[in-house]
Amino acid sequence: VAKVRGEVDTSRLETFSDGVFAIAITLLIIGVGIKAEGGSLTYRLAEQWPSYVSYVVSFAIIGILWLHHHEIFRDIRVADHGLFLLNLVFLLGVCFIPFPTKVMGDELASPAFADQRTAVIFYGLTITTISLTFNTVWLWAAYRRRLIEPTMPQVLVRARTRSMWLGTPPYAVATVVAIWSPLSALVLYGIIDLVYMVPSEWLERLVVAEVRRTAEPAPDRETEEVDPDREPQ
Amino acid sequence: VAKVRGEVDTSRLETFSDGVFAIAITLLIIGVGIKAEGGSLTYRLAEQWPSYVSYVVSFAIIGILWLHHHEIFRDIRVADHGLFLLNLVFLLGVCFIPFPTKVMGDELASPAFADQRTAVIFYGLTITTISLTFNTVWLWAAYRRRLIEPTMPQVLVRARTRSMWLGTPPYAVATVVAIWSPLSALVLYGIIDLVYMVPSEWLERLVVAEVRRTAEPAPDRETEEVDPDREPQ
Amino acid sequence: VAKVRGEVDTSRLETFSDGVFAIAITLLIIGVGIKAEGGSLTYRLAEQWPSYVSYVVSFAIIGILWLHHHEIFRDIRVADHGLFLLNLVFLLGVCFIPFPTKVMGDELASPAFADQRTAVIFYGLTITTISLTFNTVWLWAAYRRRLIEPTMPQVLVRARTRSMWLGTPPYAVATVVAIWSPLSALVLYGIIDLVYMVPSEWLERLVVAEVRRTAEPAPDRETEEVDPDREPQ
Amino acid sequence: VAKVRGEVDTSRLETFSDGVFAIAITLLIIGVGIKAEGGSLTYRLAEQWPSYVSYVVSFAIIGILWLHHHEIFRDIRVADHGLFLLNLVFLLGVCFIPFPTKVMGDELASPAFADQRTAVIFYGLTITTISLTFNTVWLWAAYRRRLIEPTMPQVLVRARTRSMWLGTPPYAVATVVAIWSPLSALVLYGIIDLVYMVPSEWLERLVVAEVRRTAEPAPDRETEEVDPDREPQ
Repeated sequence: VAKVRGEVDTSRLETFSDGVFAIAITLLIIGVGIKAEGGSLTYRLAEQWPSYVSYVVSFAIIGILWLHHHEIFRDIRVADHGLFLLNLVFLLGVCFIPFPTKVMGDELASPAFADQRTAVIFYGLTITTISLTFNTVWLWAAYRRRLIEPTMPQVLVRARTRSMWLGTPPYAVATVVAIWSPLSALVLYGIIDLVYMVPSEWLERLVVAEVRRTAEPAPDRETEEVDPDREPQ
Repeated sequence: VAKVRGEVDTSRLETFSDGVFAIAITLLIIGVGIKAEGGSLTYRLAEQWPSYVSYVVSFAIIGILWLHHHEIFRDIRVADHGLFLLNLVFLLGVCFIPFPTKVMGDELASPAFADQRTAVIFYGLTITTISLTFNTVWLWAAYRRRLIEPTMPQVLVRARTRSMWLGTPPYAVATVVAIWSPLSALVLYGIIDLVYMVPSEWLERLVVAEVRRTAEPAPDRETEEVDPDREPQ
Repeated sequence: VAKVRGEVDTSRLETFSDGVFAIAITLLIIGVGIKAEGGSLTYRLAEQWPSYVSYVVSFAIIGILWLHHHEIFRDIRVADHGLFLLNLVFLLGVCFIPFPTKVMGDELASPAFADQRTAVIFYGLTITTISLTFNTVWLWAAYRRRLIEPTMPQVLVRARTRSMWLGTPPYAVATVVAIWSPLSALVLYGIIDLVYMVPSEWLERLVVAEVRRTAEPAPDRETEEVDPDREPQ
Repeated sequence: VAKVRGEVDTSRLETFSDGVFAIAITLLIIGVGIKAEGGSLTYRLAEQWPSYVSYVVSFAIIGILWLHHHEIFRDIRVADHGLFLLNLVFLLGVCFIPFPTKVMGDELASPAFADQRTAVIFYGLTITTISLTFNTVWLWAAYRRRLIEPTMPQVLVRARTRSMWLGTPPYAVATVVAIWSPLSALVLYGIIDLVYMVPSEWLERLVVAEVRRTAEPAPDRETEEVDPDREPQ
C-alpha cells in the first residue's frame, strides 16, 4: 500500500528523530562549565547556577517534545515527503536548543541586566518558534486526515489539533515577561514544562483511552500477545 | 540466500548511517558560539549571523543527504563489503561537515576578504566531494543491478543514476562563484538545498510511484496490513 | 491491550534511553584534554592522570546503569506516562555525568586540597542522586506489579527491589569518605563499580534463572527458534 | 531458551555498540580545529594537515572495528554477562580514540620531535590495546563455542580466532617504528587500515561463504524471502 501511494511507513523517520532528540538532550551538558580559576571550586560551582537551571529547563523541553513527538506519531500512519521536510525543520530547531541554553546560562551569571534580558528573550523566541514548527508537523499530517491512522476517531484528531495551539502561547507570554524580569521568565519556562509534563498530557491520554475503549472494543485483540516491535496503533 | 552469497541485508548499515547522520546534524551547533565579551549580547549575537546561516545550510545538506540515502536504500536489496566501504567513505565526508561549517561561520564574520573566499571554497569543495562519494555508493549498487531489488524496473535505476549526476555540478558551480563573491556562493548553496529538498525529489517520487503502479499492480498486497518493521520494497 | 489501558510497550523508551546512554558514555572523552604547553608531552599526558581515572570510573558507572536498565526493562511489560517521566529524570542525571567527571578530573590535578575534596564530593553526590532516581523508575513499575511482566514471580520482584536499595548506600558512604580523603573516595568509586559489575549481578541472574526454571518449565519453548527482534520475556 | 540459561539475545548489545561506534566516529571531528589567528586562512588550514590525517586514520580504524564487530556478532548466538562486560571494556577503548587522535593531530604540527614521537606512540598503544580487547570479546564467545551459532562450522570459528591474533601485531610493530620515525608510523597505521579494509576481510568472507555453501546447502532457504529485520544466521 505504502509503495503505491509514494508514501513510506514512519519507522525510519521516528528512529532518526529519536536519535536527534537523544543527542541534542545529551549535548546540553557541553554548554555547562565552570571557570578554571577565580575562587574556590565551591564558589565557582555555585556561581554557575544559571547554567544548571538552563540545563534542566532545556532538558525538560526536549524531553517534552520527544514525548509529544512520540504521541503524534502513534496516530500517524505513513510519512510523505512533506512530513519528512517539516519534521526536518522541527529538528533543526531542536538541535539549535543547546546554543541559546548555553547563552542563557552564561549571561544570567553576568551582571549586565540588558544582557540577561536579551539572553532570556533569545531563548524564549527559540522555543516558541520550535513549538510552532512542531505544530506544523501535526497539521500537515492531520489536514484532511491524509496521514492519520484510519482507526483514529476524527474527534481525537481535532482535540489534538486544539491542544497543539494551546501549547505555544504560554512560551510566548513568558518570553514577553522577560522584558521586565528575565528571572521570572526563566521560572515561568520551568513551570510551563512541569504543567506540560504531568497533568494535561496525562488527562488527555486518559480521555483518549476512554474514547477509544468506547469507539473500538476490538475484543479479539484483548488476547493478543503484545509484540514489542510494534507501535500500538 | 544472503548467507550463501556473502551478502547481508542492509538494515544494520542503514541503522549505523542513520546514527551518523543524526549525530553529525546535531553536532553542527557545537560550532556556533558567541564571543564572551566585546559589546552587548545583542551585538555579539548579531555579529555571528554567518554562523547561523552556515548552520542552516549544513543542516539542510545533511538532511538532504539523509533523505536521499533513505531513498536509495529503499531500492537496494542487500549490502556487500564494497558497499560497506563506499558507504563509510561517504560517512567520513558527512562527519567532516561540522568542521568547514564552523570555519565558514567564523571566517565570514572576519573582515579579510581572502579568508572569506578561502572558507567558502573550502566548504564548497567539501560538499562537492561528499556528493561524489554519495554517487559512488549508488553506482556500486546499481552496476549490473548487483544489489538492486529485483522488483525495481531498470528504467528507474537508470533515472536515479542520471539524477545523481545532476546533483553534483550545482555545488561545484557555486564553489567557483565563491572566487568572486563568497556571499553569493553561500546564497547559492542555500538555494540549491531548497531546490533539492522540495520539487525535484517530490516529482521524481511521484513519477516513480506512477511507474510502479503501472509496472506491478500486486493487488493482493493492497489488503495487507502495513508492517512498521518493514521497509517498503 | 496496550492501547486500551493508555499504556504503550517499552521499546521506544528503551531505544531512546539506549541512545542517551551511548551518547553520554561517548561524550565523557570530551572532558579529557591536556594543556597545550607547560612541559614535554609525556609530562602533560602524565599530569592528567586524574582525568583518565575519572573517565574510566564514569564509563563504568554509565555502563553499569545501562546494564541494570537493560535488566529491569526485561521485567517491565509496558510503560505508562509516569514511567516515561521518571525515566527522563533518571536520564537527566545520566546526561549530567560528563560535567562532574570533567570537574573531578581537572581539580584532582590541582594542588588545592579543598578543591579536590569539593570535586569528589560533588561527583559522589551526583552519582548517589542518579542511583536514587534509578530506583524510583523500578519502584514505579513494581508498585502493585502495575507494569511488571505477568510471568515474573513476585519473589523476584521483591528481590530486585531489595537489591536496588543496597545499590545506593555504598556511593553515599564513599562520598562521605571524600571529606577526609578525596583519593580514597575515588578508589572506592572504582571498587564499587567493579563489585557491581561482576559478581553480585551475575549471582543474582543465576538465582533468577534457577527460580524461573523451577517456576515455569515451558517445555514447548525449548524448541522455539530464537527471534532476534524479541526481548526475552 | 535464552531465558532459561540466563542468556539474552545480542540485539540490544549490538544496537548499543553501534550507537557508540556511530558517536565516537562522529566526535572525531571535534578534535579538528584551526588557530583563530596567525596567518591567512589558507595557511592556517594547511598547517593543520596532521589533524586531517589523524582524523582519516581514526575514522578508518573505528569503521574497521565496526565492520569486524558486525562480523563476529553474526556468528554469536546469545550474549551472557561476561560478553556484556568485555564488550564494555572494548567500547571504553573505542570511546577513548578521539583523545589520542586529537593529541596526535596537534603534536605532529608542533616542531618538537620528542613530542611528535610521544604522540604517535601514545596513539599506537591505544589502538593496539583496543585491538586486544576486541580479541577477548571473540575469544570469550568462541571458547568451547559457548555463545556461537550452532550452524557455524568449527573450522570457521578457528579460522576467525587465528585471523584475530594476526590483527594486533601490525599495530604494535608500527608503534615501535614511531620511536625512530613518527611520520612513518602514521603512514603505516594508514596502510594497515587499507589492508584490513579491503582484501583480507573480503577474501576471508569469500572463503567463509564458500565453506558454508559446501557445509550447509539448506536448499529450502533458497526460496525464502529476505526478512529485513533478521540478521542472517
